[in-house]
Amino acid sequence: MSGNSIGVLFRVTTWGESHGKALGVVVDGCPPNIDLTEADIQGDLQRRRPGQLSSTSPRQEEDLVEILSGTFEGRTTGTPISLIIRNKDPDSTAYEELRDIFRPGHGDFTYARKYGIRDHRGGGRASGRETVARVAAGAIAKKVIARQGIEVIAYTQELGGVAAQELSLAEIAKNALFCPDSKAAPHMEERLEEARSQGDSLGGIVTILVRGCPPGLGEPVFDKIDADLAKALMSIGTVKGVEIGVGFQAASMTGIECNDPITPEGFATNHAGGINAGITNGDEIVIRAACKPISSIEKAQETVDINGKPTSVSIHGRHDVSVIPRIIPVCEAMVGICLADHLLRQQALGPTGGT
Amino acid sequence: MSGNSIGVLFRVTTWGESHGKALGVVVDGCPPNIDLTEADIQGDLQRRRPGQLSSTSPRQEEDLVEILSGTFEGRTTGTPISLIIRNKDPDSTAYEELRDIFRPGHGDFTYARKYGIRDHRGGGRASGRETVARVAAGAIAKKVIARQGIEVIAYTQELGGVAAQELSLAEIAKNALFCPDSKAAPHMEERLEEARSQGDSLGGIVTILVRGCPPGLGEPVFDKIDADLAKALMSIGTVKGVEIGVGFQAASMTGIECNDPITPEGFATNHAGGINAGITNGDEIVIRAACKPISSIEKAQETVDINGKPTSVSIHGRHDVSVIPRIIPVCEAMVGICLADHLLRQQALGPTGGT
Amino acid sequence: MSGNSIGVLFRVTTWGESHGKALGVVVDGCPPNIDLTEADIQGDLQRRRPGQLSSTSPRQEEDLVEILSGTFEGRTTGTPISLIIRNKDPDSTAYEELRDIFRPGHGDFTYARKYGIRDHRGGGRASGRETVARVAAGAIAKKVIARQGIEVIAYTQELGGVAAQELSLAEIAKNALFCPDSKAAPHMEERLEEARSQGDSLGGIVTILVRGCPPGLGEPVFDKIDADLAKALMSIGTVKGVEIGVGFQAASMTGIECNDPITPEGFATNHAGGINAGITNGDEIVIRAACKPISSIEKAQETVDINGKPTSVSIHGRHDVSVIPRIIPVCEAMVGICLADHLLRQQALGPTGGT
Amino acid sequence: MSGNSIGVLFRVTTWGESHGKALGVVVDGCPPNIDLTEADIQGDLQRRRPGQLSSTSPRQEEDLVEILSGTFEGRTTGTPISLIIRNKDPDSTAYEELRDIFRPGHGDFTYARKYGIRDHRGGGRASGRETVARVAAGAIAKKVIARQGIEVIAYTQELGGVAAQELSLAEIAKNALFCPDSKAAPHMEERLEEARSQGDSLGGIVTILVRGCPPGLGEPVFDKIDADLAKALMSIGTVKGVEIGVGFQAASMTGIECNDPITPEGFATNHAGGINAGITNGDEIVIRAACKPISSIEKAQETVDINGKPTSVSIHGRHDVSVIPRIIPVCEAMVGICLADHLLRQQALGPTGGT
Repeated sequence: MSGNSIGVLFRVTTWGESHGKALGVVVDGCPPNIDLTEADIQGDLQRRRPGQLSSTSPRQEEDLVEILSGTFEGRTTGTPISLIIRNKDPDSTAYEELRDIFRPGHGDFTYARKYGIRDHRGGGRASGRETVARVAAGAIAKKVIARQGIEVIAYTQELGGVAAQELSLAEIAKNALFCPDSKAAPHMEERLEEARSQGDSLGGIVTILVRGCPPGLGEPVFDKIDADLAKALMSIGTVKGVEIGVGFQAASMTGIECNDPITPEGFATNHAGGINAGITNGDEIVIRAACKPISSIEKAQETVDINGKPTSVSIHGRHDVSVIPRIIPVCEAMVGICLADHLLRQQALGPTGGT
Repeated sequence: MSGNSIGVLFRVTTWGESHGKALGVVVDGCPPNIDLTEADIQGDLQRRRPGQLSSTSPRQEEDLVEILSGTFEGRTTGTPISLIIRNKDPDSTAYEELRDIFRPGHGDFTYARKYGIRDHRGGGRASGRETVARVAAGAIAKKVIARQGIEVIAYTQELGGVAAQELSLAEIAKNALFCPDSKAAPHMEERLEEARSQGDSLGGIVTILVRGCPPGLGEPVFDKIDADLAKALMSIGTVKGVEIGVGFQAASMTGIECNDPITPEGFATNHAGGINAGITNGDEIVIRAACKPISSIEKAQETVDINGKPTSVSIHGRHDVSVIPRIIPVCEAMVGICLADHLLRQQALGPTGGT
Repeated sequence: MSGNSIGVLFRVTTWGESHGKALGVVVDGCPPNIDLTEADIQGDLQRRRPGQLSSTSPRQEEDLVEILSGTFEGRTTGTPISLIIRNKDPDSTAYEELRDIFRPGHGDFTYARKYGIRDHRGGGRASGRETVARVAAGAIAKKVIARQGIEVIAYTQELGGVAAQELSLAEIAKNALFCPDSKAAPHMEERLEEARSQGDSLGGIVTILVRGCPPGLGEPVFDKIDADLAKALMSIGTVKGVEIGVGFQAASMTGIECNDPITPEGFATNHAGGINAGITNGDEIVIRAACKPISSIEKAQETVDINGKPTSVSIHGRHDVSVIPRIIPVCEAMVGICLADHLLRQQALGPTGGT
Repeated sequence: MSGNSIGVLFRVTTWGESHGKALGVVVDGCPPNIDLTEADIQGDLQRRRPGQLSSTSPRQEEDLVEILSGTFEGRTTGTPISLIIRNKDPDSTAYEELRDIFRPGHGDFTYARKYGIRDHRGGGRASGRETVARVAAGAIAKKVIARQGIEVIAYTQELGGVAAQELSLAEIAKNALFCPDSKAAPHMEERLEEARSQGDSLGGIVTILVRGCPPGLGEPVFDKIDADLAKALMSIGTVKGVEIGVGFQAASMTGIECNDPITPEGFATNHAGGINAGITNGDEIVIRAACKPISSIEKAQETVDINGKPTSVSIHGRHDVSVIPRIIPVCEAMVGICLADHLLRQQALGPTGGT
């Protein structure tokens, strides 16, 4: 309950700092008898890795995951799965000059105020590097839900103001930006290069789809599945907004426009994003998450030091221009974790006779 | 953990159905020695009541709250506070014809699929009426945080496509729509009348501000305060999107535009909405929640019955044209509950020496 | 998490004080489609009622339960079940003279120190009366587990030093002491009369059996089912010790004596009390709970008032001589609640292929 | 909530199997600014190590702990503390012959039935080796409570039927059995030797004292501190009974004998074991835990294999004759963890004005 765990039955606890010895995660509640080796997890970690795009961080994180517990002869046993990713390249000297300075947009100031102590190296616990543990746990979650035919797909909806106009899922894996629009992708890359050259950074929007989800997942009234999805995504440091289905657009629709007519073949439209009254309706779940620009930029910024004295900061060194595309597998992971948890919670009810 | 509770230390559990005997809430974890009588709660229930606007439901809910436990001689004792609101006017006959029909946009279909049984009367547990218990609990939460000088204010940002252009907090209490723009309010009312006459409904956007919040609230990494706020608001049935600070707008900003410079006097801007890395920074918290149009409309809608047979439904009877303005105190309540919880969680750390 | 709830998936939250308006409980997580009316609950409340034995409290508690939510047309719906028992006879005047005095053995002193305020009337929240809500919730729990053939039976093992020598389950319902030994029961009653006449009180031991429990319930490593049972029983104010199977006797046994040999027909003995490594093994679960004597006695006791001034207290009025037999249904309830919770938790795993 | 975590605010999650790569623990919720290095933890691990007594397991576990996260420059930061203890000597070949056999007294049968799969090597997750992680977490917990002057001391009360008659705390550290009676200790060792020579094992009783605990810790009504202590101790695989204060003896006392008179100087006696109504009263907390004999014995035992076929098993190899004395630091750890959690929970209330 101290903030570093999520999920009730599929319970994920992450630990580790950006420049500490390692990062890791304990997954408690994973059902037994699921095939699981490091290879099942490594793939998603690769997708999250930097250095695949000229605009992403050149930091050479190998991010090799090791399973320390919870499997036996290649299968899960129902006991907690402990995963560790050693930090191979934690050069902290570049951060020494930031030891006493609060970087705008980061958690430097708030961690100092909350705890009276902080690991300033690379943002410590507040670093985006923490998400490596989420992705590892998400890979397991996705295996759990895949047994029920549930699949999570995330892609770049918008980057630096350039929106994907077409949605071709086959396209996603074909470009480094996980963009479903082959024409928009190059424009996005241009925006990234432009921002990089200006020492600035960019935000974007990620869309996450869930396919094959059965009706019935989600617990009224507070643990609605959209509520838990919103929390799961908003818990990613970069996310400043979450919407389900038509989302904010719903605010300017009328009831007859917004409601999804029901037919014997299913819902005629999917404005609800696959969720009614907090419970999945069997249709595709559609979520969008808005990501702010990376806070670390070379452009000089006004700030104060830990004594409140005004100063200026220009952040050099290794950092991405945008959390996109590396945030894509993180979003998938969080949605997967949320769904795995709700799947187990629904199973707990036993057969309900739902028609 | 079964979905009807929220909060770790300030723990709120609601119960009750739209047309059951009563609705209520148990608030566990409220600190002792706080003055509390029914009058402290009744005010917020009045603000949530229908019938104050021509476009809101004429249902005569008296919504009188009774404190059943947890206080002694007018003060809280630290033991659970049980509140009950009896249903005075639960005429269910109008719903009899809907017993076997799934209303589009409602939880009828999903509850049936999840549980294999549902109380069809007025939406049962999925009814917006459930929020009366949230508002009651929220009134207590707001007393808890008020002791630390924290105040929650919600208002109508947009209704039926009409946006408030000016923000005058003094204006909010002066109109039935809780709109901070005296010029926009009449236009919003016109839109409501228009939609009512068409048998249709409207959505809108609520803004919630938190003032006087100290830095340090929020628990990394999953229980970030923005993550918990997003969950708290998204758990309201009508909400389809939540954003913090600049929210979705952040997606098209650059780093230098989005980061809030820090000065000895505080943050120069507040694009972050008062939260960095999931922890409050002492600035005003700014949240927006997108509400979909009311699902119950008179206009005929295509749907199916419980046997999957196609049919048409036109919903008459008592229902609002928009959740706005009645959702305003509900949003305040959820934000208040979330903050009370995080306030206690921060207190648990003891003095931290935060500078 | 604030102490007034127990269970993860079958979640029970009680509220109410001895002399408040009412006591009650919210049961969240009860599976849908279980027949449930007040009559299903009232029976256990009757068994807990005072006044059936000359030595029990003459207080006329009617203890009529009302179901306020969570059922529809006589069946559970999966939504929270709210139960209320109004206090019909809360005459508090007798407690006025105790307002400023700490009664030995009670929670008067500790509540005052913890909260800085306390409802002194009848012990407030710390009163044994709180268990009425547990019994009500337990009645529902027992219905949940009965669907899987699990039954909970509690009886008086020992009272005032008189032990039941024979174990005839058929005998339990035949005497007011729920004693399985028809010869011991009258001796126990004599001890009660003797203690009453001396203005003193008695302790005892309760045995709780669980029959028909399938193997596999219990979650390693902290939520072992014996750990959760111990907590559930020790949370009853009067219980000072809990043991499973041979319990404390195990301390002086050797391995060959204590281990239960396994045969194709099952375990040859049941020293383990039906639990191995925290998981049920399919054998009968055997638990014993030691109850201290009632703290309220007429005999004069040395104590202090709230100002620390020494004084003497002699407690008159309505109180039992022993928590036995009224604690019997409370023990059953707590064990039932614990089992219902673990049953749902095991169901959450889905089919495990356990051989 | 999946069983491998304990505590609400001071939250301990253990992972690892007896013959896996490593065991470990994540401690979430530890307050910041506490000095912490491996040396603070290693001491307790040494006390738990085997090989210090001729009767304990000769297995050479080095049990070196490594702090992977949560500290910065030797102090805790408020972020999760991840500890790992690598398994240096996990020779599993001796267990190969037990792969298909259910050892009596162990979790072999129940794990197989619960999960349909089990790591048979050394008991897998059900091994006593799991407690190494508890001891590591307990060392941190004890530092947290030591800041408030709270100290936990455990000792051997009884072993193989030989009881300590005298209680000299100074004696505890002087003998390998942690026995407070210098005359009883040699008799206990004799019993151990005797049992070893017979291929049998012994049980015992551990007493745990808590000194310096302030009044007010414990949360009514389910999270009473004695309820949580009982759970914490009963979650140790070997423990079959727990009692507080006079414990089972209370059952045969009368009220006037059992109640602790209150004087201006404090409680005249301590039959309650420092806890009234589930809340600490400032007196010494006294707990006893009954431990069963080690289940692994050389003496031949009747059992079945995984196909239900009868067979006989005689367990050779590395195992202790009794969990005493190695369980002593484990008991201390569990009590320390429980108290640290309740200390933070009480702090969450803020100043209560308790008199």
